[in-house]
Amino acid sequence: MKNNIDLNEMGLCQMLRALEDDACTTEALIEACFNRIEARESDVGAWQVNRTREEYLAYYQANKAVFDASVLKGLPLGVKDIIDTQEMLTEMGSPIHVGRQPVEDATCVALIRAAGGIVLGKTVTTEFAYFKPGKTKNPADLERTPGGSSSGSAAAIADNMVPMALGSQTAASVIRPAAYCGAIGYVGSRGEFSLRGGQPLAQSLDSLGLFARNVEDIQLLRAILLRQSVSIKANKAVSPKCVMVCHGECVGETSTAMKKATESAIELLKSQGVQVIELDAGNRIKDMVNHHINIMAWEVCRNLATESFEEEQLSDPLAALMKQGLTMDRSTYINSLHETQMCQEWLWSYAPEVEVVLAPAAPDIAPLGHSATGAPHMSRPWQAMGLPVINVPGMKDENGIPLGLQLIGKYREDDALLSYASWFKELLN
Amino acid sequence: MKNNIDLNEMGLCQMLRALEDDACTTEALIEACFNRIEARESDVGAWQVNRTREEYLAYYQANKAVFDASVLKGLPLGVKDIIDTQEMLTEMGSPIHVGRQPVEDATCVALIRAAGGIVLGKTVTTEFAYFKPGKTKNPADLERTPGGSSSGSAAAIADNMVPMALGSQTAASVIRPAAYCGAIGYVGSRGEFSLRGGQPLAQSLDSLGLFARNVEDIQLLRAILLRQSVSIKANKAVSPKCVMVCHGECVGETSTAMKKATESAIELLKSQGVQVIELDAGNRIKDMVNHHINIMAWEVCRNLATESFEEEQLSDPLAALMKQGLTMDRSTYINSLHETQMCQEWLWSYAPEVEVVLAPAAPDIAPLGHSATGAPHMSRPWQAMGLPVINVPGMKDENGIPLGLQLIGKYREDDALLSYASWFKELLN
Repeated sequence: MKNNIDLNEMGLCQMLRALEDDACTTEALIEACFNRIEARESDVGAWQVNRTREEYLAYYQANKAVFDASVLKGLPLGVKDIIDTQEMLTEMGSPIHVGRQPVEDATCVALIRAAGGIVLGKTVTTEFAYFKPGKTKNPADLERTPGGSSSGSAAAIADNMVPMALGSQTAASVIRPAAYCGAIGYVGSRGEFSLRGGQPLAQSLDSLGLFARNVEDIQLLRAILLRQSVSIKANKAVSPKCVMVCHGECVGETSTAMKKATESAIELLKSQGVQVIELDAGNRIKDMVNHHINIMAWEVCRNLATESFEEEQLSDPLAALMKQGLTMDRSTYINSLHETQMCQEWLWSYAPEVEVVLAPAAPDIAPLGHSATGAPHMSRPWQAMGLPVINVPGMKDENGIPLGLQLIGKYREDDALLSYASWFKELLN
Repeated sequence: MKNNIDLNEMGLCQMLRALEDDACTTEALIEACFNRIEARESDVGAWQVNRTREEYLAYYQANKAVFDASVLKGLPLGVKDIIDTQEMLTEMGSPIHVGRQPVEDATCVALIRAAGGIVLGKTVTTEFAYFKPGKTKNPADLERTPGGSSSGSAAAIADNMVPMALGSQTAASVIRPAAYCGAIGYVGSRGEFSLRGGQPLAQSLDSLGLFARNVEDIQLLRAILLRQSVSIKANKAVSPKCVMVCHGECVGETSTAMKKATESAIELLKSQGVQVIELDAGNRIKDMVNHHINIMAWEVCRNLATESFEEEQLSDPLAALMKQGLTMDRSTYINSLHETQMCQEWLWSYAPEVEVVLAPAAPDIAPLGHSATGAPHMSRPWQAMGLPVINVPGMKDENGIPLGLQLIGKYREDDALLSYASWFKELLN
C-alpha cells in the first residue's frame, strides 16, 4: 500500500484482512475514509448528516478494546436516511420530518453496530425513497444523476468514502444507483431481513439493500444481519452452469451501449462454458412493470397516510402516486399481487436448468442532470416478484461511465445468487 | 336506552347511529365508557396506561367541531401496547422498554385518529406479543386468563370499556384472546394493512388485528384503515353456500365442550341449507403448527436482535424461542416457508366450492390461572398460511364461559370473510 489515500479504496473484507495481517491500523483506515470524504463531499454530496472525524475517532478510541475484538473492528457504515438511527436524525428526505429523532436504531443498524460497525453518517435518500432527488451527484461523472433512491449510499461506496452502506429498494432504489455509480448493490429476497425501524413505503415490495465494493463484503454483512457465522475470508465464487438472459427488450428500451454490454457478458459466459438461454417472454415481464406500479400506488398512500395529509409538502410525483393509489380499484391491486406471484412461478419453470437470470440493471448509463434519478422499470419486474437481485459493476461505456448488469436469483436462494455474482464480477473485471 | 351504563355496551356502529339519530350525545358515550372502566379496571386490568376522564373530555371538547364532523365522532380506541403512539408510551410489555416514547403514531393509529377516533389508552400486551402474560384477567371469569397476546384489547372490548381496539397476531394473539373473552377479533390477510409503527415480531407472520363487538364495526374500521369509502349502516350479511369444517383433531386435542360447540354450529349451518364439507386433512394441517414455530423462531431472534442482547431481561419462553431460532438450520426455515405456501394452495383446492373454513378458535374455554395465556396451536396453521381469520363469539359452555369459533377466509378475500362472519354471528346469537 502506497499511502492512506489508497486504504479507503479497499473493500470491507480486504480492510479486515489487512488489519488481521497488521498491514495497517483501524485508525489509518478511518482517517483514509475521512480524507476521501473531505476531498470529495462538496462535489458528491453523499451525506445527509455525519459524524466529524474527531467525533468518530474519539468514539472509536473510547471503546477501542471492544472494537478491536469485534468482527467489523470499528469500520465506518453509511445508513440511508430512511432507516432509523438512535444517534442521528432520520428525516427521510422530506421537509415533513426535519428534525425527526428516532428512539432506537433499526434492527439492521443495531446488528451491524453490535458486530463492531460505526455509523459514520446518514446517506442522502430521495423523498421517502421515491422519486424526488436529494443533493447527491454521480461520482463517476458529477454532471449525471447517481440514481435513486439510495443515492448517497451508492455514491459513498462507489467513491470509496466508506466500505459498507445500507439502503432499501421498493422499485429500483438499490440496483439503479448501484448501476449508475458503479457499486455492488444487493437486494434481499422479500422477507429475508428484518425491516424493523426501516421506514416502509410498500409492504409487499420493500426490501433491505446492501452496498459494498466486493461480493464477499455483501456476504459478510448478510451473515451479520442473519446472525449466522461470519468469515472475512473471501468466499468461494461459484460458476453457474446455466444462465437465462432477459434482454432489455423484455422490459423496455435500452441504449446501444447497454445492448453491447449485455452481448459482451453473454460472450464471456459462453467462453467459460456456461449454457446461456434467452428468455422469450413476450409481454410477460413487461406486464410486471404495471403490476408493480399498481401494488406500489395502493400501498404507498396507505403506509404514508399521515404524510399524505400534508399534501403541500409532498413532491408532485409522490402526490400523483398517492392519488393513483387512492382512486384505483382494490381488484386491480389484488390482481397485480396475484399476477406477480404467477409470473415468479412461470419464470423459474421456463427452463428448469436455469440457476440465475442476467438482465440490464438500467436502460443505459446514468442520465445527465440532477432533476430526476433515471428510469426504474428495469428493476420493477424482479422487485414485484420478490426475488433477490444484485448489480454487478464492471462494464463501462466508451467514456468509462458505468453500465450495470444485474443477476436475479431464485426466491430465498440469496446465498447461491451471491456465489454466482462473485464469480461473475471476477469475469467482468 | 335506560342509562349511561347501557350506552357503553353498544357496538361502534350502533353508537354512531345513535349519535346520528340524536338518541344520545358523544359525551354521554364517553362518560359511559369511563364509568365502566372505573367500575371494572381494578378487576380486569385491561389498560397499561390511559387518559383520565378529565383529560379525554377536555381534549374532545377542545376539538368538538372537528370530532362532530368526523366519522368516528371522538369515540374511544384502545391500542395494544406493541403499537406506537405519539402521545403515550409504548413499552411492549417488557422491562427493556420502560419509558419508551415513540416519535410518531403507527399508521393504523394515525388513520383512526384522522377519522375521529381518540386513543383512550394503551392496552396490556404480553412481553413483545409473545407468551409472558401481563396483568389482565378474563372479564367473563376473573379466575381465568384472557388469552394473549392482545390481552387488554380483547378484555376491553368484551367488558364494554371501549367500542374499538387494535391488536396484532403472529401466532394466536388476536383469535385466542377474542375467543377466551368473547369478542370479535379479526386478523387481516398477510400484507393487507400497513404495519408501519407496529413493532414487528416475525415479518412472515405478523398481521394487524381489530377487536369490536359487531362485525359491522370491523367492516367500518377496515374501510378506514384501507382509506376506502365508509358507512355506519349495518353491512349486509351474506350466507355462504359451502363451508368446510376443520375439526380440532386436524390440529390437536379439543375439549368436549368445544366439540359440542363445533357440532352445534354445523347443525345450525345445515339448518340454513349451507353445504358442509368436512376436511380430511391427515397430518397436513397439524404439520403447519411446527412449520409456524420454525418460521417464528427464525424471525423473532432476528427482529428482536437488540432485545436478545439483554437476555436477563427476557422471559424464559422468549429466550428459549430465540435460542431455537439462532441454532436452527436455515434450510428448516426455508422449507417451512415453502410448505405453508403449498398448504395454502392445497387447502383451497381441496373442494373448489368451499367459500370459508370453520374451525375451533381455541382448544377449550380459557384455562384457569394467570401464569400463561393458553394454547396457541389452533391459530398457528392459518397464520402460517397468511389467511384472514375472524373469531365469532356466541357459543358458551354450560357455565356461560365463551367458546370461540373461527372462520378462515381465502387469501386477500377479507371482505367476503367479514360478510360471512356477519351472517354467522347472527346465526349463533
